[in-house]
Amino acid sequence: MSAPGLTTVSEAKAFGGKQFVYTHRSEETGTEMRFAAFLPPQADKMDVPVLWYLSGLTCTEENFTVKAGAQRVAAELGVALIAPDTSPRGDEVPDDPDGAYDFGLGAGFYVDATEAPWSAHYRMRSYIETELPALVGQALPLDMERQAITGHSMGGHGALTIALRNPERFKGVSAFAPICAPMRCPWGDKALTGYIGPNRAKWREYDACALIEDGARVPAIFVDQGLEDGFLEGQLKPELLEAACDAAGIRLSLRRQPGYDHSYYFIATFIEDHLRWHAERLGF
Amino acid sequence: MSAPGLTTVSEAKAFGGKQFVYTHRSEETGTEMRFAAFLPPQADKMDVPVLWYLSGLTCTEENFTVKAGAQRVAAELGVALIAPDTSPRGDEVPDDPDGAYDFGLGAGFYVDATEAPWSAHYRMRSYIETELPALVGQALPLDMERQAITGHSMGGHGALTIALRNPERFKGVSAFAPICAPMRCPWGDKALTGYIGPNRAKWREYDACALIEDGARVPAIFVDQGLEDGFLEGQLKPELLEAACDAAGIRLSLRRQPGYDHSYYFIATFIEDHLRWHAERLGF
Repeated sequence: MSAPGLTTVSEAKAFGGKQFVYTHRSEETGTEMRFAAFLPPQADKMDVPVLWYLSGLTCTEENFTVKAGAQRVAAELGVALIAPDTSPRGDEVPDDPDGAYDFGLGAGFYVDATEAPWSAHYRMRSYIETELPALVGQALPLDMERQAITGHSMGGHGALTIALRNPERFKGVSAFAPICAPMRCPWGDKALTGYIGPNRAKWREYDACALIEDGARVPAIFVDQGLEDGFLEGQLKPELLEAACDAAGIRLSLRRQPGYDHSYYFIATFIEDHLRWHAERLGF
Repeated sequence: MSAPGLTTVSEAKAFGGKQFVYTHRSEETGTEMRFAAFLPPQADKMDVPVLWYLSGLTCTEENFTVKAGAQRVAAELGVALIAPDTSPRGDEVPDDPDGAYDFGLGAGFYVDATEAPWSAHYRMRSYIETELPALVGQALPLDMERQAITGHSMGGHGALTIALRNPERFKGVSAFAPICAPMRCPWGDKALTGYIGPNRAKWREYDACALIEDGARVPAIFVDQGLEDGFLEGQLKPELLEAACDAAGIRLSLRRQPGYDHSYYFIATFIEDHLRWHAERLGF
């Protein structure tokens, strides 16, 4: 499908629908940005609801698209899948000075950076919250009144915080092994210090638990977490999300899955449950 | 699962079963060889049937394992999936002098090479037909009386020729976009000339159509072929397999799939049909 404002990188038929990778110029990041879009067969005839999927550290738009096997159920349910990249890219974009995997390229953390040199390009919050939805809403056959969001690890953090800040926009939010409280783990501490600076009060809008403590509400959250996930205790901390939701009266369905790790095999195993959960909430 | 003779490279729970990557020393190739093995949950209690999957040009054991999404239905049906590499690897293994993708590393064509310098390591026929089945039959909880085989492109050629030469071993054979007649396409011509030499009579055991013409028989073959596959007319030529099966009275179910290309999205879309077809034939 040719789409105004988008350049097609690749397209392939899958499960009766079409898997696209698009690129476009982003005003927010000041770079070319790539994203993947799966359009189910129903999109030939009508605008379809959208599930956003935000990826984790080191990922691009490709990981979920190639590894999760989500297209099968998306085609059955008639929902589009949009999988953005995880950071700006390009020679002009600064990276972690040590080339670490958890900051800089592939690690945008879904924030609008305020600290130099990151603030020039690292604007993944506004890119995902505002620019990309406006673009795909115009260019693709999507029903933007029916959006849901999910993500993995750093992308689970992104999904939770974006949904908590925009409850009117997203009819459902779920996550796979999310970073539940970036203010209280090493990954988040490094990222928020770097991108936002030392004032921890400014970090709160990028921490799902702090957002909930500060009054943000969504009707329900669905989380899967593998119990053999090597990042569970040190970085992910679902027990903090559980406590925050308990205190706030948010219905959290947190499934602790014995034997599963942090990989896409874990996501592939449970993505169908997430799609069907979102379908019930969005009525698709 | 620790398995005698095998070193575990990685393991991850998936769909209630376990996805392993193993490495081992191969006598046939004289190298370390990797393969992927998915064991369904049923393998905890009993020996399970096996579906072999042979990959195409440029692939390793990883492509099918990560991209095809076959584990879901394999777990439901209780069948193991074994996905070998496509050639020997290592500094000692010669590659195409021009580094081409269609000969040498990643392009073993499932033959036992007779020409120098290839004959020392390129023994993928004996590796797949003899050495690896003996190894996994000993090391893993597999019922080697119930084996089936499939593959993609060059691996579809591998599956067809191995099954035609070993009909007592494989209860079913299917393929995705196979090279149907390597003797009559540029990929096959290059590979067979290089690995086997100029005497075309010796090529016939590596050509599914020629094997059928020479009397090889299997009860049935199931093939999916995408009609937007860029290699369809020049390299794959399913019409030649159709003609050979017609003349021999072999029941060929050849589905021409409009819109599908040569990618793993095509395989992911139809792998469930192949698994269920094999399950009926093997009784799993």
